[in-house]
Amino acid sequence: MHAPSVVKLPDAWFIACTSEALKPKQVLPFTLQGVPLVAFRDSDGRAHALLDRCPHRNAPLSLGAVVNGQLQCRYHGWCFDGAGECQAVPGLVQGASISLPSRRAEAFATCEQEGYVWVCSTAGSQPTHRPRAFPHYREPGYTSLRRTYLVKASLLMALENTLDVPHTAFLHGGLFRTAKKKNAVEVVVRRFQDRAEAEFIGEPRPEGLVGKLLSPSGGVVQHVDSFFLPSTAQVEYRLGDSYLCTTSVMTPVEDFLTRVDAVICFKLPLPGILVKPFVAPVGEHIFSQDARILAAQTETMQRFGGEKWTSSELDVLGAQIWKLLKQAEAKQSGPAEPYEHRLKMMT
Amino acid sequence: MHAPSVVKLPDAWFIACTSEALKPKQVLPFTLQGVPLVAFRDSDGRAHALLDRCPHRNAPLSLGAVVNGQLQCRYHGWCFDGAGECQAVPGLVQGASISLPSRRAEAFATCEQEGYVWVCSTAGSQPTHRPRAFPHYREPGYTSLRRTYLVKASLLMALENTLDVPHTAFLHGGLFRTAKKKNAVEVVVRRFQDRAEAEFIGEPRPEGLVGKLLSPSGGVVQHVDSFFLPSTAQVEYRLGDSYLCTTSVMTPVEDFLTRVDAVICFKLPLPGILVKPFVAPVGEHIFSQDARILAAQTETMQRFGGEKWTSSELDVLGAQIWKLLKQAEAKQSGPAEPYEHRLKMMT
Amino acid sequence: MHAPSVVKLPDAWFIACTSEALKPKQVLPFTLQGVPLVAFRDSDGRAHALLDRCPHRNAPLSLGAVVNGQLQCRYHGWCFDGAGECQAVPGLVQGASISLPSRRAEAFATCEQEGYVWVCSTAGSQPTHRPRAFPHYREPGYTSLRRTYLVKASLLMALENTLDVPHTAFLHGGLFRTAKKKNAVEVVVRRFQDRAEAEFIGEPRPEGLVGKLLSPSGGVVQHVDSFFLPSTAQVEYRLGDSYLCTTSVMTPVEDFLTRVDAVICFKLPLPGILVKPFVAPVGEHIFSQDARILAAQTETMQRFGGEKWTSSELDVLGAQIWKLLKQAEAKQSGPAEPYEHRLKMMT
Repeated sequence: MHAPSVVKLPDAWFIACTSEALKPKQVLPFTLQGVPLVAFRDSDGRAHALLDRCPHRNAPLSLGAVVNGQLQCRYHGWCFDGAGECQAVPGLVQGASISLPSRRAEAFATCEQEGYVWVCSTAGSQPTHRPRAFPHYREPGYTSLRRTYLVKASLLMALENTLDVPHTAFLHGGLFRTAKKKNAVEVVVRRFQDRAEAEFIGEPRPEGLVGKLLSPSGGVVQHVDSFFLPSTAQVEYRLGDSYLCTTSVMTPVEDFLTRVDAVICFKLPLPGILVKPFVAPVGEHIFSQDARILAAQTETMQRFGGEKWTSSELDVLGAQIWKLLKQAEAKQSGPAEPYEHRLKMMT
Repeated sequence: MHAPSVVKLPDAWFIACTSEALKPKQVLPFTLQGVPLVAFRDSDGRAHALLDRCPHRNAPLSLGAVVNGQLQCRYHGWCFDGAGECQAVPGLVQGASISLPSRRAEAFATCEQEGYVWVCSTAGSQPTHRPRAFPHYREPGYTSLRRTYLVKASLLMALENTLDVPHTAFLHGGLFRTAKKKNAVEVVVRRFQDRAEAEFIGEPRPEGLVGKLLSPSGGVVQHVDSFFLPSTAQVEYRLGDSYLCTTSVMTPVEDFLTRVDAVICFKLPLPGILVKPFVAPVGEHIFSQDARILAAQTETMQRFGGEKWTSSELDVLGAQIWKLLKQAEAKQSGPAEPYEHRLKMMT
Repeated sequence: MHAPSVVKLPDAWFIACTSEALKPKQVLPFTLQGVPLVAFRDSDGRAHALLDRCPHRNAPLSLGAVVNGQLQCRYHGWCFDGAGECQAVPGLVQGASISLPSRRAEAFATCEQEGYVWVCSTAGSQPTHRPRAFPHYREPGYTSLRRTYLVKASLLMALENTLDVPHTAFLHGGLFRTAKKKNAVEVVVRRFQDRAEAEFIGEPRPEGLVGKLLSPSGGVVQHVDSFFLPSTAQVEYRLGDSYLCTTSVMTPVEDFLTRVDAVICFKLPLPGILVKPFVAPVGEHIFSQDARILAAQTETMQRFGGEKWTSSELDVLGAQIWKLLKQAEAKQSGPAEPYEHRLKMMT
């Protein structure tokens, strides 16, 4: 399929797995931007990621075992350290060269932060910055919960869907908004060097369950939807002391398969411990509706041989996300001057 | 696979579904020549067919609902009328343009006739003629029954199979003819501008069950096999007052998947009400034998990367059908002078 | 997938099936180097192989039946003799030509030897030599057993795996050798015109079960691993009067699917009748471990779009096999001067 909106982002941090998913001695295969990788921990517990292909005969290293903190191939027993250097070729006589450049397994930088193992998308590259932190994550007074999903959609499709307001009244009718729209809200759209946002001004507390959780008595919300390069979508609501924020870090597994690590963080009038049991099933319901329409969208695009989209002025962030992704793919830094425009939307 | 005998016919009527399959409020996806389409009825009950892809974000319209006689997309609620015009973009403020050309869903002309919803194969095209009527359909004294099948074969393969006499003695041994051939029959092959036919002269009543239904006492049948552009195969037997005609309208779903809407119409010595219960299972048995060999033929062609056929003089209609299909694909009208040749065939 | 190590070998004998698998009247489809073929026996019991595609309408001949020693197509009843000549077109009037060149089914030379039906890989070609005989097969004092397997691997991968020593300590740990290596063995690698071999000099009787079968009391084995064009891998052990030889004839079914006909032949201190019941399950265990790693290797190569191998000096026969296969593919005869080199390997 010809899919011009699919991007491959170099030198970017993505989530490989949760920290607890990568146990000591465990060999964990995963895929990033179509590339099969394998994660394991060395003797010090440090996570590493190698290309999931033995340089010798191309057996998958993920069939192997961790031996003395190295990854041992299941076929001939070649061993690789966390940097990908070959440290053993069983059967070689003493004195023979082992760590030849041709025997190196490609290694991808990793770091651990806030319970996730992050991996850099370019082999041999070491990013100078850390992954972006989740706002208010594990701060006192805030409750948070985490979920991981897989969605059959490109990175752009998943990001735009997560930050899109108009579809919520239809697809998730009753949970956020109702199909009957009555409020004309001002939207300010801004693009910065490595992020974009849509701020909704004068939006009444949404109808439906989510709004009632924020404030039983109504009011005007502060609502900002943001995209952060390389792949984070964040939806933030404030109303008085109430706060509700969903941060979704997207990992492009394949062109049309995206892993979503969502952290929902909130401070609400009701105690977090009372609200939490209701947030998870509601979030899962919303996610399953989005997942279904995104998979159908992908399938339709594939049947037609590629995407052919048109937009309305209500598609406020899609074009900004797209521009930032293409800049990141081409390793260009963003424009010096930030960009801004305003519009009205019925919500 | 390289398949030179596959054609794409423009401006042609094909069957989308039976009329009763498309109920009010129903949203019915179907595929025509590889193109995903969706059928629905407007408030007046008129059938419409649109490309099954929302022009906005390419969600399939077939996941949507009929609302006020329009088709509403499940993702953002955009609404399309039967002509494909966008009539609603929820969230747009009053006064904003809705029906922009870029928001139009491609529409395909439809008509209903004799219990079928017919659809034109070219978007935006309105054929000047109606689909060909079924002979004697629902006429007094005639009994008819209808069946719909799917066969894994190209349009040409399905048409030729339906009109081919020599295979019947083998594949359907005993039902039409026996493998022991003893009659030399004269065949007249004629090609006209938009149809071709093979007339069998002096053919004794066929052996086997079908022949016995026509006439218990034998005799000479009038037997004509006809192809009508774009995709109808018709087999007609007359013997005295007896009449038996199978009209098969083929719809090319994919290159190697063909929908067959067969109408069997007959007037026989036995009352129709007595014969009908036997015709259906016999027809289904014949169809399943043909479907099996056609699917095997397709599979073999695919394994070899394409078709490589040779013919004998007994393949009387295949070449004529092929010539007419290629002319229709190229939108050429047929030759002014009709073509005719004669041969002998053992049956 | 771009797979430069896949070869297509012309004019070569491969195994189609065992002799007992091809019963009289049976129609047996099989695939050789990606080409669908069909085997049957004529009235004299002689095996024949034709392209599995009727030249008429491309129905698979393997759906047909053997009638009077000819293969009859299921669709229109055309009949083909063992040489592929068309001998019947039912429905043709007397005097019409039947055996036209365009109606010929491509035929592949076959021969039967030692319980296998061998087929030549090039249509219309008649090799001047017979397939290589199995050593000591059915000789007095020798016990032999045969097994047929399918492995998801290219011919080269399957051949190299079968003749590879270093992987045995890991993948089959305990059966042949232990991971703890302590013996430096001299290996002599030789390439001849149509074969290559690795001779292991001064190798102590292997640890593990296989070694104990050869000699309960230890000793030094004579161990030679050999490749014979087009596709035979042979592993031979001798220790005093003991003999154990596995001959594997590989048939490239598809690029990454190989049929392995293995003949294990032995003369051991214990009576053959006592050993045989243990050899089969051990052999099957070894095979299933190899099959699993080879399939994973193939899958990994496919995910990465092709193979990218590196070697160590321990990969003694892979390069020689590869050179001989490429010469055979290009129909070159091998170099006049044999090639030899020596190395040390820890076993």
